[in-house]
Amino acid sequence: MGKMCEESVNHVNQMFPKVDTLSFNGEGCVVPLKTAGKVITCRAAIAWGPKQPLVIEEVQVDPPQAMEVRIKITHTSLCQSDVTFSIHGDESLQAFPCIFGHEGAGIVESVGEGVTDIKEGDHVIPLFIGECGDCACCKSNKTNLCEKFNIVRNDVKEPRFSIRGKAVHHFMNTSTFSEFTVVDSKCVAKINPETPLDKACLFGCGITTGVGAALYTADIEPGSTVAIFGLGTVGLAVAEGARIRGASKIIGVDTNPNKFIKAKALGVTECINPKDHEKPIQEVITEKSEGGVDYSFECIGNTDVLYQAFLATRPALGLTVLLGVDISPRKISLHPIDLFSGRRIVATTFGGVKGKTQLPYLVEMFMNKEIRVEEFITHELPFSEINRAFELLLEGSCLRCVLHL
Amino acid sequence: MGKMCEESVNHVNQMFPKVDTLSFNGEGCVVPLKTAGKVITCRAAIAWGPKQPLVIEEVQVDPPQAMEVRIKITHTSLCQSDVTFSIHGDESLQAFPCIFGHEGAGIVESVGEGVTDIKEGDHVIPLFIGECGDCACCKSNKTNLCEKFNIVRNDVKEPRFSIRGKAVHHFMNTSTFSEFTVVDSKCVAKINPETPLDKACLFGCGITTGVGAALYTADIEPGSTVAIFGLGTVGLAVAEGARIRGASKIIGVDTNPNKFIKAKALGVTECINPKDHEKPIQEVITEKSEGGVDYSFECIGNTDVLYQAFLATRPALGLTVLLGVDISPRKISLHPIDLFSGRRIVATTFGGVKGKTQLPYLVEMFMNKEIRVEEFITHELPFSEINRAFELLLEGSCLRCVLHL
Repeated sequence: MGKMCEESVNHVNQMFPKVDTLSFNGEGCVVPLKTAGKVITCRAAIAWGPKQPLVIEEVQVDPPQAMEVRIKITHTSLCQSDVTFSIHGDESLQAFPCIFGHEGAGIVESVGEGVTDIKEGDHVIPLFIGECGDCACCKSNKTNLCEKFNIVRNDVKEPRFSIRGKAVHHFMNTSTFSEFTVVDSKCVAKINPETPLDKACLFGCGITTGVGAALYTADIEPGSTVAIFGLGTVGLAVAEGARIRGASKIIGVDTNPNKFIKAKALGVTECINPKDHEKPIQEVITEKSEGGVDYSFECIGNTDVLYQAFLATRPALGLTVLLGVDISPRKISLHPIDLFSGRRIVATTFGGVKGKTQLPYLVEMFMNKEIRVEEFITHELPFSEINRAFELLLEGSCLRCVLHL
Repeated sequence: MGKMCEESVNHVNQMFPKVDTLSFNGEGCVVPLKTAGKVITCRAAIAWGPKQPLVIEEVQVDPPQAMEVRIKITHTSLCQSDVTFSIHGDESLQAFPCIFGHEGAGIVESVGEGVTDIKEGDHVIPLFIGECGDCACCKSNKTNLCEKFNIVRNDVKEPRFSIRGKAVHHFMNTSTFSEFTVVDSKCVAKINPETPLDKACLFGCGITTGVGAALYTADIEPGSTVAIFGLGTVGLAVAEGARIRGASKIIGVDTNPNKFIKAKALGVTECINPKDHEKPIQEVITEKSEGGVDYSFECIGNTDVLYQAFLATRPALGLTVLLGVDISPRKISLHPIDLFSGRRIVATTFGGVKGKTQLPYLVEMFMNKEIRVEEFITHELPFSEINRAFELLLEGSCLRCVLHL
């Protein structure tokens, strides 16, 4: 344990030796040095407005207040939602200037008053859906959508970030595009400290969303047939979950055949390009699955594809899981009679995974080599090249680019 | 048991003494007399075409073929679906001439070759959704929609009814508007023979659909809040199911305040008329239920109301159950983002109840005074006045009119 811990921190220090807030105790583990209770000045990627490149600048990060945690982010990866809200976003979706990033991992630098479940030195993943533990949702086993710490409700009213005296807004409870961030302690999952943080960061969104959708939201049974629409990181993470559950058939659908090699390597049993077929894709899938798949997953965020995914499932038994967010105003082309077929449709956020209580088990599955993560990391870059990472994501050749802070 | 049995049959014989197919054995129970294996001539309500009154005429009913059952229908009630397909229907929905009726009860007159689970004299309810027991759906606990005997798939290819040599089509596997009907043995639920058949007939559709939606499809927990849109028989049967499960609040919604007295007598805790409110009804309900109800039920068949019912549920936890069939071409006004609220929507047919294996338990709940049925019977008429029964249903003052055959 001590060795892994030391390696992680050495790695951080090699990348950015200037940030000198963590040290080692006699057993080789992290201890807070001299920053607890003080404002930290560090680098962050500032989004000054929508549709603009991010700018790496020095920011001030306040100490954590009561029930908050300040985290040294060691690694962050980029997810499509960062693009949706930054490069493609506007002021109605997010206040600016802000610090994006919601798929990260790091080490707790200090904790605020009243925090008892997290301590300095813990290895953690910030959660864009928290788990307060007290609300009706947290007490229910039907949902992971905490009423208090949900995506759209950021309870950090006063930003903890500032630049040249000007407040910088948080994003999705997390803001991982910063060497240090402050989050509510209910938005932190404590993980096995032996987990390499450059892999663990992917559990902050993409891996958990896809694998969780298969394991938690759909709860796929052995022998089931599955169709996945969109073979990006989330779609392939669904495939990973379906493989873990012993699905008999995992059909991948994408209009970009370049994605098929990786998809097959990750367990997709058959890849279909809708452009290769004259028939509607749902009919092709229905034929290949003897009447429709048991589970379909929409991982693109296209309302038309969602309806195709719905029709590709087996009547009476089929479940369509919606993962991709379509922010266009178009409605789903669903008639009430469609529902009387007995097909069901449900959306999932963060794969239905409760962050504090369930995410650590998914990370353990990775440590036990049950969930593959390395295969999703196609690029690694220093934090300073974050705008290049956005380009890679938009080019479509990248699954995940991990930034080393 | 013998006494009840005798009473039922006496009752039948008093109403229609001409039909002389059943007799008693030494223990006072029904035995087949002389019709088994022969064509029976009896009265049925013939629908010669859509949008026409039914005509009571003498029809010939063939003996049951292999795996079929011929039933002496003693009672049938009318349901909105009979209206949808007859008075409001057209040839694209149903072949004519036909014999409507799908909410009935009766006594088995004879069984065809190979039938082992049903015998002459059994008290039964015909099922418009059968249970073959062998298909993937019957083997799953997720659905009651048998792949073989579903509403839209009538496997009785050749009608067993004829009139003056002309074939008369079946309806929804059942055709209960006839003194005798022939159904597949997989479309028959055998019930406790002590059950009064003039009450049991309501389990053929309305009661089961509503109570089942609450108990099986929604699986309401004690203390839950519920909103029911449409306070007809099905809506009130949902209320009965919600009451049985200990719902803390059962809000009834209808634009006809005349329905409120009955609704309150049947356990609806609060009735709302949307016409009394300027706000959208979903907002009124959200306020009354502290953030939205746990379960909403659409029992009208109106696509706009369905969306209101959806929005009236609590984010993350709310489930909307669709029971009312809207045959207009209008789509549901649902945006993908609506689903990311975590609200779910699902349709139910026959309350999610598997007819052969689960319906007998619901009937037992009635016998144990757990489910109320008498309260739903507002009118009783002889079979000959079936067109008057349709008028009563359309006038809106009638919950269920039981016809005595």
